Amino acid sequence: MSEATNVYFAYARWRQLPLNSVSLTGGFWAEWQNLNRRTTLQHGYQMLEKAGNFDNLRIAAGQKEGQFRGPAFQDSDIYKWLEAVAYELMTHPDPALQRQADEVIELIAAAQQDDGYLNSYYTIVEPDRRWSDLDFGHELYCAGHLIEAAVAYTRATGTTQLLNVATRFADLIADTFNPQAREGAPGHPEIEMALVELYRETGNRRYLDLAAYFIDQRGKNKMRGLGWLKAEYHQDRVPVRQQDVVEGHAVRAMYLNAGVTDLYLETGEQALLDAMKKQWRDMVTGKMFLTGGLGSRYEGEAFGDPYELPSDQCYCETCAAIGSIFWNWRMLQVTGDSRYADVIERQLYNGMLSGLALDGKHFFYMNPLLSRGGYERQEWLGCACCPPNLMRLLASLGKYFATHDESGVQVHLYNNAAISAELASGRPVALSLQTDYPWEGNIRIQVDKTDGAPWQLCLRRPAWSSNATVSINGQPAEATTMDAGYIVLERAWQPGDVIELALPMEPVLVMAHPRVDSVRDSVAIERGPLVYCLEARDHANVNLLDVRLDETAPLEAIRRDDLLPVSIVAVQASGVVESENGWSGKLYRRLNEQNGVPRQPIQITAIPYYAWGNRGENAMRVWIPRARR
Amino acid sequence: MSEATNVYFAYARWRQLPLNSVSLTGGFWAEWQNLNRRTTLQHGYQMLEKAGNFDNLRIAAGQKEGQFRGPAFQDSDIYKWLEAVAYELMTHPDPALQRQADEVIELIAAAQQDDGYLNSYYTIVEPDRRWSDLDFGHELYCAGHLIEAAVAYTRATGTTQLLNVATRFADLIADTFNPQAREGAPGHPEIEMALVELYRETGNRRYLDLAAYFIDQRGKNKMRGLGWLKAEYHQDRVPVRQQDVVEGHAVRAMYLNAGVTDLYLETGEQALLDAMKKQWRDMVTGKMFLTGGLGSRYEGEAFGDPYELPSDQCYCETCAAIGSIFWNWRMLQVTGDSRYADVIERQLYNGMLSGLALDGKHFFYMNPLLSRGGYERQEWLGCACCPPNLMRLLASLGKYFATHDESGVQVHLYNNAAISAELASGRPVALSLQTDYPWEGNIRIQVDKTDGAPWQLCLRRPAWSSNATVSINGQPAEATTMDAGYIVLERAWQPGDVIELALPMEPVLVMAHPRVDSVRDSVAIERGPLVYCLEARDHANVNLLDVRLDETAPLEAIRRDDLLPVSIVAVQASGVVESENGWSGKLYRRLNEQNGVPRQPIQITAIPYYAWGNRGENAMRVWIPRARR
Repeated sequence: MSEATNVYFAYARWRQLPLNSVSLTGGFWAEWQNLNRRTTLQHGYQMLEKAGNFDNLRIAAGQKEGQFRGPAFQDSDIYKWLEAVAYELMTHPDPALQRQADEVIELIAAAQQDDGYLNSYYTIVEPDRRWSDLDFGHELYCAGHLIEAAVAYTRATGTTQLLNVATRFADLIADTFNPQAREGAPGHPEIEMALVELYRETGNRRYLDLAAYFIDQRGKNKMRGLGWLKAEYHQDRVPVRQQDVVEGHAVRAMYLNAGVTDLYLETGEQALLDAMKKQWRDMVTGKMFLTGGLGSRYEGEAFGDPYELPSDQCYCETCAAIGSIFWNWRMLQVTGDSRYADVIERQLYNGMLSGLALDGKHFFYMNPLLSRGGYERQEWLGCACCPPNLMRLLASLGKYFATHDESGVQVHLYNNAAISAELASGRPVALSLQTDYPWEGNIRIQVDKTDGAPWQLCLRRPAWSSNATVSINGQPAEATTMDAGYIVLERAWQPGDVIELALPMEPVLVMAHPRVDSVRDSVAIERGPLVYCLEARDHANVNLLDVRLDETAPLEAIRRDDLLPVSIVAVQASGVVESENGWSGKLYRRLNEQNGVPRQPIQITAIPYYAWGNRGENAMRVWIPRARR
Repeated sequence: MSEATNVYFAYARWRQLPLNSVSLTGGFWAEWQNLNRRTTLQHGYQMLEKAGNFDNLRIAAGQKEGQFRGPAFQDSDIYKWLEAVAYELMTHPDPALQRQADEVIELIAAAQQDDGYLNSYYTIVEPDRRWSDLDFGHELYCAGHLIEAAVAYTRATGTTQLLNVATRFADLIADTFNPQAREGAPGHPEIEMALVELYRETGNRRYLDLAAYFIDQRGKNKMRGLGWLKAEYHQDRVPVRQQDVVEGHAVRAMYLNAGVTDLYLETGEQALLDAMKKQWRDMVTGKMFLTGGLGSRYEGEAFGDPYELPSDQCYCETCAAIGSIFWNWRMLQVTGDSRYADVIERQLYNGMLSGLALDGKHFFYMNPLLSRGGYERQEWLGCACCPPNLMRLLASLGKYFATHDESGVQVHLYNNAAISAELASGRPVALSLQTDYPWEGNIRIQVDKTDGAPWQLCLRRPAWSSNATVSINGQPAEATTMDAGYIVLERAWQPGDVIELALPMEPVLVMAHPRVDSVRDSVAIERGPLVYCLEARDHANVNLLDVRLDETAPLEAIRRDDLLPVSIVAVQASGVVESENGWSGKLYRRLNEQNGVPRQPIQITAIPYYAWGNRGENAMRVWIPRARR
């Protein structure tokens, strides 16, 4: 099966489209994809060379002498880079890029051991200790990324060298881990979703069974944990079907849940879906930052308690937002509920995108909502999981924009795009979208191809939009029905029909649940899908910690081409700067000693959160205390 | 020189008294000392046996076969236990306890290597890798605790076996680390203050020079750091004299500063004192919790940014409060400034004491200001630095109560106590204190011995006290002078003179600097030196996160014998419980969607912070949001 054909999941309500069926044809995300294609991918290749990832494989392959460099999971960064290349090749064929990737694949194949085993760290450093540290050894994690890359590369190019490497390794793993051989679960989930995808690609049920086996092995409360965190760090406290909260290492939790939801998509086991829904509710009602960031603690890069959402020492790893997008994307396919797409949109535009600099060559690992300064983007990271994760997500971004089912097409995200799909009985349809989203909320959708028989077009109404309107061929669409957050338009569409969706974007102030201590009596600015922040650079001679926002003053959205290397819509607000004088260096004092603190008015300029940290190191904050006394 | 004689430090303004010159004769701290003597010390001995600390020495001594158990610094817990025993023997001679300690000392001596080296971890596990990992190996840290225990034990008992062990090891260290041999500084400071004390005990300047050498070696920005923290984790970013902020691992920072201040006490080098004062200001103006707790981050058990003071994920390690007491005690001796005693008092009654359960047999390592539940005291800890640190602090607590100089006596802390001192020319004086502190603020001080010539009695007026009054023999003391927070009473005292110091204790509400995000719009209750907290157990069927305090309602202090295993003064306040209904599971919403949230009145009962966590696991909070809307 190749990506050019549809990929059907047994228990999907809505089905994924092949990547080359959705093309982002300009505007916001197309620019990010161009940056990724032109800059980030080759920057990544150079960094993988510099950081020793390729050398590790060369040493393992016997092509070079030397020491293993970097963390044990270095191979996985190469695989993620290859997966990103595969998506690029699907949408933008490029023989030079394919040759570059083929050379990397040759190297990977050379590093594979005779029995199929493949991991440069263990091969070089601990050859006698394969599978000796499942909790932290990352062999199965690396294998998972190998499999994902291989499936994607085969679908993109039709070549099978990498897929053969991956299936040989997957077969070795299946021979190693099973009830007759040995127990064990990956300390870092990832291989679960990879094996389900390998099953989809090969049709070999052995891989689906192995994914299920690993998922069922969890919850024996045996894994070592990290620091003060016990087995919950590894999502090993209770079995998956009893796990009703998100806890422990955030990326691990998201990757596992993506794998579990994939398993549900193929088996339809209700207990799995029930656990997923409980965990999802736990996450979005108490453990997700406004940016969609996940992970409240540096300790274990982990989820915290409900409502433990510190702006400064949150972790919000870029990979956690990406992992959540993977999971929510699968939940959306299962349920057809726009709440999952709302989370995807929040994370795409904010907590994920903040991970990549506007120059395409610098990265954030943590994505805090408050920096007092001293935190900067890096050209690469000692633990470099995030950069190639960004590359593969951006390269495959089109697939998140739309799905289809037998009766129609569903549009989840908005950007200039061309979408083609097949309905039941091979009925081809095609749409094109024009919009300046996320800067403006008008989306023009034209039906480019249709057979004249009725079908449903479902358009997501974002949770942030309170007054959406729709017109068809210039006439207001009255009495549209809503289904789980989607505007349902059913009609015998004709080529040239134009649907106009208006999602007016006013800047708004939002507040957090009062159980969240860290942002009490504070507000944040949102506009459309974007969360905004203040950067010190736009507020000269002021300590951002002393700024208070006047919630009674109007907010104004203004296109600004002068603030950043790219044009953005900024939001202007009014506020005051509180003098510190009244405190005379005290950290605590009696409430009744409080006296009038002098205040100076200030104009506040907020920029989109994702764009912060692109003008050198400086302070930043998302949540702003209210000016009221 | 023995502890029975005075210990003079060259650059001390005020001088430490021998431990047996201050006796806590009843009341609050005497009860804690009794608990420590009767319960905690022997519990500790049993735990040291159970956790393998003694076995490690037995194996190193060749008396037993087996594997090393526990972290590499296990020996240090034994040394701290011995140091605590030494202080007990000074104030409460006990032949059975001394025999028990002597047996431990025999074991330590047997584990010492022929060349003087002593460390069971390296001897057993990595015999060929001595001094190979100064950053994390803890050999010098353990040596420091050995030296401190040896000096204390010699002063207590006059026996020299442990001192001989310690000096042999110290000599080996001095031969190993010097400009002619090798460079290096301890990854965990501790030996610096120990070596200064060894110099004081032996008069051998080599040890003072070695302390100075280690201190001067810091700041080469070479140590490895931990996690995202670089050399600042180890206080190795800049040289000590340029270090103007507290940063990195909090216990390491405090121990280093205690050692640096000790060095100043012997050398009088102004640059050292200047750096100490800058760091102290940085700490108390932005990095100290209300409880005196230190360390804002789990990551590296470290100080955070200024104003980064989260109530929940603060670290506030018991040992950090203890280390700060060590440092502030030295700064007090240098300066005679009550601000250092204010910090000591805050930490003693709150952030240190919270580390020990009311039963004397359970411990907190972290001391958060907010627990949402799930955090409990343990009978011992895998990393057991805190329990024996509590033991040695409590056993030596008397010394923090008073100092002397040629012209008089200074009283820093209040408890029932008998204090004797010698002024200039061997003039003996004695005082006795009677008080129900910290429950009431009346302190009666009687002059028991004096030669009739004038001398100064300095009484600390705590920073929390705004309306202190003093009377002498029933007459108000008019026109007393104040010196850096001390009430100075100079007079030709007669035996039987009675000074009455009244420090009225009203419960008060305090607030934090508005740059502290985590407790914005919240208040905490203090009364006298005690910080209060709410425990869920005293507020049935209420989520503590929903409680708001009515700042306009009166606070009432009430003696309660029914709440806890011990009698305490509780504080009652009024507040409301906010219903969550209005939020319908949302975590964020628009400010203008805010609607009236139903509120129910509630009576709030606050208990002293140190006493929380003694009735099983439950939620607790120090900072309470204000009820105003």
